[in-house]
Parts: sequence; C-alpha cells; structure tokens
Amino acid sequence: MTLARLEHRKLTALPPAELRRRFRAGLDVDTAGLAPEFVQASVSIVPEENAADFLAFCTRNPSSCPLLEVLEPGQWEPRAAPGADVRTDLPAYRVARDGDVVTVPDLLGVWRDDLVAFILGCGYTHIGPLIEAGVSLHHLDRLTQQPVYVSNIETRPADPFRGPVAVSMMALPGDQVATAVRVTARYPFAHGAPIWIGDPARIGIDLSAPATGDPPELAPGDTPVFWACSQTPWLAAAQAGLPFFAQHAPARMLITELKASVLVDGLA
Amino acid sequence: MTLARLEHRKLTALPPAELRRRFRAGLDVDTAGLAPEFVQASVSIVPEENAADFLAFCTRNPSSCPLLEVLEPGQWEPRAAPGADVRTDLPAYRVARDGDVVTVPDLLGVWRDDLVAFILGCGYTHIGPLIEAGVSLHHLDRLTQQPVYVSNIETRPADPFRGPVAVSMMALPGDQVATAVRVTARYPFAHGAPIWIGDPARIGIDLSAPATGDPPELAPGDTPVFWACSQTPWLAAAQAGLPFFAQHAPARMLITELKASVLVDGLA
Repeated sequence: MTLARLEHRKLTALPPAELRRRFRAGLDVDTAGLAPEFVQASVSIVPEENAADFLAFCTRNPSSCPLLEVLEPGQWEPRAAPGADVRTDLPAYRVARDGDVVTVPDLLGVWRDDLVAFILGCGYTHIGPLIEAGVSLHHLDRLTQQPVYVSNIETRPADPFRGPVAVSMMALPGDQVATAVRVTARYPFAHGAPIWIGDPARIGIDLSAPATGDPPELAPGDTPVFWACSQTPWLAAAQAGLPFFAQHAPARMLITELKASVLVDGLA
Repeated sequence: MTLARLEHRKLTALPPAELRRRFRAGLDVDTAGLAPEFVQASVSIVPEENAADFLAFCTRNPSSCPLLEVLEPGQWEPRAAPGADVRTDLPAYRVARDGDVVTVPDLLGVWRDDLVAFILGCGYTHIGPLIEAGVSLHHLDRLTQQPVYVSNIETRPADPFRGPVAVSMMALPGDQVATAVRVTARYPFAHGAPIWIGDPARIGIDLSAPATGDPPELAPGDTPVFWACSQTPWLAAAQAGLPFFAQHAPARMLITELKASVLVDGLA
C-alpha cells in the first residue's frame, strides 16, 4: 500500500468534526470517500442582493442544486454541521471577484456581513452507499479526483443565473450501472439519479478533457454515467458576471454531521 | 396512421380476457403494449420428471426466471388468470420434441397429463409503466418486435439445466436510462432492473443479429439497455436435451388478470 493510500485510509475513518478541524488547520485534500456514512455538501456564497435570484435558480434546477439549507446573511454555522464554520471548515475555496478567480484556504479575508451561504447536497454523499452496494469506484481506488465536465444541457434560468449543467462522471462496468442508478436515486438531496448514461459526445463531452478532476481510465465494457454536479452554480454565477461569488474548491466539500441514511427523506 | 398501427391501437385497449379469447381463436400477434396495466407472463412447460430441476433452475436464476406460479401436473388454469388455459390462450407456442422445434398455435395436440406449466414474469409487464414514466419505446412506435440476444453471461446451473442468459434490449436516449432502471427495478417479478447497460460486445452481443425479434435502429446518443429474458429457460432446456419442452413463442405472452401495480410486492 502506498503512503498516499495509507494516509487516505486513515483520514477515511475520522469523524466529521475532526476532519473539519484538520481542514480548518490547513489540510487540503479531496474529500471523496471520507466519513462515508455522512452527507457531504457544497457551499455557494452570494451577496444578499443576489440571494433571492440564486435561490430561484436552485429551486428550478434541483438535480444540479439540491438545496439543503440557506443561512442568514453573514451567518456561517450550518444546521447540517453544528459548530462548523462554512468560512474555514472546507479544505479550500474558489472565489470570483470582479472577474478574477483565486483559490484560497479559507474565506476569512473576504467575508462580509451581507454574504449568504447556500448549502447544497453533493454527489460525494453517494460514495459510501455505492461502495456498500458493491459498485467499483476505480477513480477512488486510484486516488484520482473524479472528473467534472461542462455539458451542453442547459439549466432552467433564473436571471441573472443561467448556463450549462456541470456533470460528474463515473465509468462503471455495464453490470453495475443499474445498481448505481438505484442507489443514487435514493438520495435526491445529493443530486439523485444520473442525468445521462452512455455516449458522452451527445452531451458535448470529451472524456479526456475534464473541466476539473482527472481524466478517467475506462476499462472495456465500462459505461460513462453522469450526475448533475454542484459546479453548475459556479458556471451560472460566472455567466451572470456576479461581482462576488465563492464556492468550495472542486472536490473539497463540507463534511456534515448528517447521516446519509437519514437524508433519504430530506432534511428534517 | 397505418392500418397496422390502427389495428394495434384497437387491440391495446381490450381487456385481458378478450385478448386471450382472440388468441385462442387464432390471432397471432406480438403482445407488447397490449393491456398495458396488466402483468404479462411467459409459460414454460416441462415433463413432471424434470419439474423439480427446472424449479431449482428458476430459483437460482430469478432475474431470468422470476417465478410467479407452478401449476400441478396436467393442470392448465393459472391462478394469475382465472378461466384461462395455458395450452391455448397465448398467440403461439414453440415446442421442442426430441430435437425438433415447431411453432404451433396451441398445445392441445401435444398436451399430456404429466406436463407441468411454469408461469414466469415477463418484461412486457414493464411497457405500461415505462410509457407512463415518459420513456421512449421506439421499437413499439415502429411496431417492430423487441430484439432478444444470447449473451455470454452464464446462468447458475441446476442440472441438467444450464447455459447462457438470454437478454432483451431497448435502445434508450442517455437521459432516459436512469428512469428506465428505476421503473423496471420496481418489478422484480418481471425481470426487474437491467442486468447490463452499455457496450453490447462486452457481453458477446452483435446488435444487428438478434436471436429473435427485429434488429434495432439506434439513434445517436442511444444507450443499449439489457434485461434478463424468459428465453433463458428455452436455451437451458435445449442444452439439457430435454425430450419435451414447450414455451410461449417469442413475443407471444400470457396476458394475466394481475395488475402490474399489484405485482410490485410479488404475487399475493
């Protein structure tokens, strides 16, 4: 076992609060597979003046933007993870300000009292249940980052938010695709079932050129399976030309205190 | 609308008992899409001396051979369709005797008191629910017969029964595959969820050369989706060299009085 794999295995077993503490202290890793019983969430942060439109965008695009929680302006502690701070407790963030994009370890330097944090369910929530169901997650075995692509499927706009649907992809053996559909369909609050299964070209995707993450290695007989992804609102905010938008960095999620098994029926 | 399509539409609306009456009177049509609220079933008939082994084969291969009912030796009225006669009420039958195969309109000429009829759930049960869910069944629109292939997937043997799994195929747009999985998974007694999704070659299949049915026309972006099929026991009986085996002719099913919506939880 490589050192990287050993380190990852150690992290996998830690409770969410300890993982968040490490991320706050500076650890920057892909959160895929960590705390596999727990819901992982993305965080999108918009100025209060754009919050209503962004909320409308989320409700119109529930598979891309499954809404778990909207915090009050200026607030940073989500109900999904009591004691957590959405400004610091993710491994890394992407911030777009006036057209410039930077990746930062926390949002303390850019935080304002008028910022509204949206907590959206994330497909990383599927990983534990998929493994339990016997689905082969080769990208995880290889410690590579799941690829995300910009599809040619359009979101339902809520001005100024509009644009294409971003999709995450897993290449699965043909006899595991139905199982993956059935398992992930149980989690509508984590993007739910796949939105496309099969030919990537038909939705404008070249598998070798992901927007983020690593190009996949497909085995013969593997079928590409695509889920809507929380990078969709990042694209929509960029298209809207928002003066400020912040989000989790790709593959760097909020690990919540919610058990995935509980989220099946939504957030109580 | 063509005459064939008009005739088919008229048939679709008839109740199961009237359809069975017409089949008994000689009508020979593909039963796909007929009486879409009702369970369709295949019928496999073996001599009593092979019945226990065939039963074992069915229980070991539930996705190919989802067992609804086993009749007493010599009996022909299934519980699933009171008043029906499995010897006459299907549009056509295939009979294998001492290596010879014939297709016949009924089994009256070959019936014996030692024959045991097995009623197995059939994928045609999916058609009504799939249409309701908005899935495009182009082969049905075109009035072509759904293709069935012999895969290289092996059944779990129950001597003398063994051999490959036969699969039915629908080519679906990539954005409808997950829906088709979710809908058909609700009917484990009608073959349930697909067993293979994607590359046909990987399971030994050339789409242009079905064992029965019509070669499909795939549109760009269509994904081949394969379900286990009730022709699996036909292949197993042939491999076993049974002196007598009879079955529904391909695409000629028993239309039962069971509502598909009820079969979700099995046969009461």
